[in-house]
Amino acid sequence: MRSTTAYQATTPGSTLERVTIERRDLRSDDVAVRVTHCGVCHSDLHALGASESSAFPVVPGHEFVGEVTAIGAAVTAFAVGDPVAVGNIVDSCGSCPMCRAGQENFCQEFPTLTYGGRDRLDGTLTHGAYAAEYVVRDRFVYHRPPGLDPAAVAPLMCAGITVWEPLRRWQVGPGTRVGVVGLGGLGHVAVKLAHALGAEVTVFTTSPSKSEDARELGAHHVVVSTDEAAMAAVANSHDLLIDTVSAAHDLTPYLATVALDGTLCSLGHLGTVTIETMALLVGRKSLSSGGSGGRPATQDLLDFCGRHGITADVEVLPSSAVATALDRLARNDVRYRFVLDLTDLS
Amino acid sequence: MRSTTAYQATTPGSTLERVTIERRDLRSDDVAVRVTHCGVCHSDLHALGASESSAFPVVPGHEFVGEVTAIGAAVTAFAVGDPVAVGNIVDSCGSCPMCRAGQENFCQEFPTLTYGGRDRLDGTLTHGAYAAEYVVRDRFVYHRPPGLDPAAVAPLMCAGITVWEPLRRWQVGPGTRVGVVGLGGLGHVAVKLAHALGAEVTVFTTSPSKSEDARELGAHHVVVSTDEAAMAAVANSHDLLIDTVSAAHDLTPYLATVALDGTLCSLGHLGTVTIETMALLVGRKSLSSGGSGGRPATQDLLDFCGRHGITADVEVLPSSAVATALDRLARNDVRYRFVLDLTDLS
Repeated sequence: MRSTTAYQATTPGSTLERVTIERRDLRSDDVAVRVTHCGVCHSDLHALGASESSAFPVVPGHEFVGEVTAIGAAVTAFAVGDPVAVGNIVDSCGSCPMCRAGQENFCQEFPTLTYGGRDRLDGTLTHGAYAAEYVVRDRFVYHRPPGLDPAAVAPLMCAGITVWEPLRRWQVGPGTRVGVVGLGGLGHVAVKLAHALGAEVTVFTTSPSKSEDARELGAHHVVVSTDEAAMAAVANSHDLLIDTVSAAHDLTPYLATVALDGTLCSLGHLGTVTIETMALLVGRKSLSSGGSGGRPATQDLLDFCGRHGITADVEVLPSSAVATALDRLARNDVRYRFVLDLTDLS
Repeated sequence: MRSTTAYQATTPGSTLERVTIERRDLRSDDVAVRVTHCGVCHSDLHALGASESSAFPVVPGHEFVGEVTAIGAAVTAFAVGDPVAVGNIVDSCGSCPMCRAGQENFCQEFPTLTYGGRDRLDGTLTHGAYAAEYVVRDRFVYHRPPGLDPAAVAPLMCAGITVWEPLRRWQVGPGTRVGVVGLGGLGHVAVKLAHALGAEVTVFTTSPSKSEDARELGAHHVVVSTDEAAMAAVANSHDLLIDTVSAAHDLTPYLATVALDGTLCSLGHLGTVTIETMALLVGRKSLSSGGSGGRPATQDLLDFCGRHGITADVEVLPSSAVATALDRLARNDVRYRFVLDLTDLS
């Protein structure tokens, strides 16, 4: 086994402590990654807030970048020193229809999550990338394009791919009218990507103060969603609405802004929602959802970001400030994503 | 004004009586149609069951066929004697984005319904086609292909177009896997159309006894939806599921049968539904709806049916038996649509 330093919570309610954990010895198709930066995702707060003892210990972190330090005997796609990135999935069955379609995120045997999952071979609990090193199957490692700030690439691996998949699925490009609801970790990347794809981008926000930020990120229009007249003015006018808000909210006013044959894609893990089917019927609108992404789309996203110079807007903190990052994230005091610099771990 | 014979209910709870009603004198773009056959739709039951006096008098009937008997001075697309068909919309604003897109059924000023609507020019209540004659704007009259039984064409104008629109919107054709939930007025036409489009068709029914009928209509597979093992066997395997069931039901088991990037299109006017977003997320599935259709798709449907010899399966009753038809429809005792023969009216 290999030892590495990581931030771990051992029981429900406990705080993260810097400890030594073990990683597996490299299998023939494994890659060892020296983690340099890891994004701090809302999922990390959820995992740390879990009440079941069986979910612990928890080492969070599932959007990270680093460099390859070792490879298994059968690895051909990576070499030591390669700049890489890893997201929230580290394995899948590889043979179900979803995997065969390149949508490992929907693997019918359930994908192995980067932390809190169970390794498909030895059944051990996976530990995340708030750590100095991660060992991962080569298929779930991605080439990181040169020229991008590594810290700012990390959030692309979860927030980025989650919004990239619907942008591609619904063929966003020049002429497409895209709305982005919520300007947080996911939303701000969605605006940048939709803009770069050539779409006409509208940001929906409850905070008029975010208008300027939205425009700087690439939005052509900003609608304050509490302004009924402003909402009425954009009725039936968006081909795709990407709703990134994770707090419970009524989808009906947003469906009203979707155009004929358009889609509202909710990414906020809203749980059970109530929909008036008439809001879908008139205009033959669709409600969909999504989360994370498959292997082809993930590499495609990184390549696209490399060509267009797109990264997340991040606030980088030393890993020793992880508690501060989580605390401020819980209060939504972040613009737009915290990233931990893990180079201070040995 | 023109006089015609019709079946009318004057107040909530009253029965249909054979009366003389007035139709408007022809405007320059009007067509007078001698109604020969009119389908009996569930909507007719709803309209007759309304409790508000303001909704009456009601002359039901919004899927009908007949022959042109007179045309306005500006009408060029029709001549006296032409076989025609009319559906549940008889006018729309013509200028909103939905109308310009050929989706008059979603007109933002609300389409004028064939009965129970308000004429856009004179504000009078529209009266339906349980009548010997209907006067209608030429834009909402359709050419009826030769060679098809007129009685069996009538239901295409409401049940037919309602299922045709999603079949076209989601580009059903060879290789597409289509599921049809419910084998009634809409469902049985959906099976015929999907089959003729070249799709692989599965019928979902709660009635094992309908299996043989489903196959005769063109279904390749039948799944009894109460059979959990059978439902599990078709998980993630339909590109489009057309749900025609109008009684309240849980959509989740049906969403489970939708394939990656597929759609469940609910046509049953379910009102408010509750959805677990995870059922959409895994497989990036969509929930949509629809109803009726626009002018281009309606003529397209009739032409398609003419080429493929497709009509509804109907039970034709003389118009004098209208009470029997409504009574049996209310008990779902119909295979699959009642059509009134109105040639017995003068």
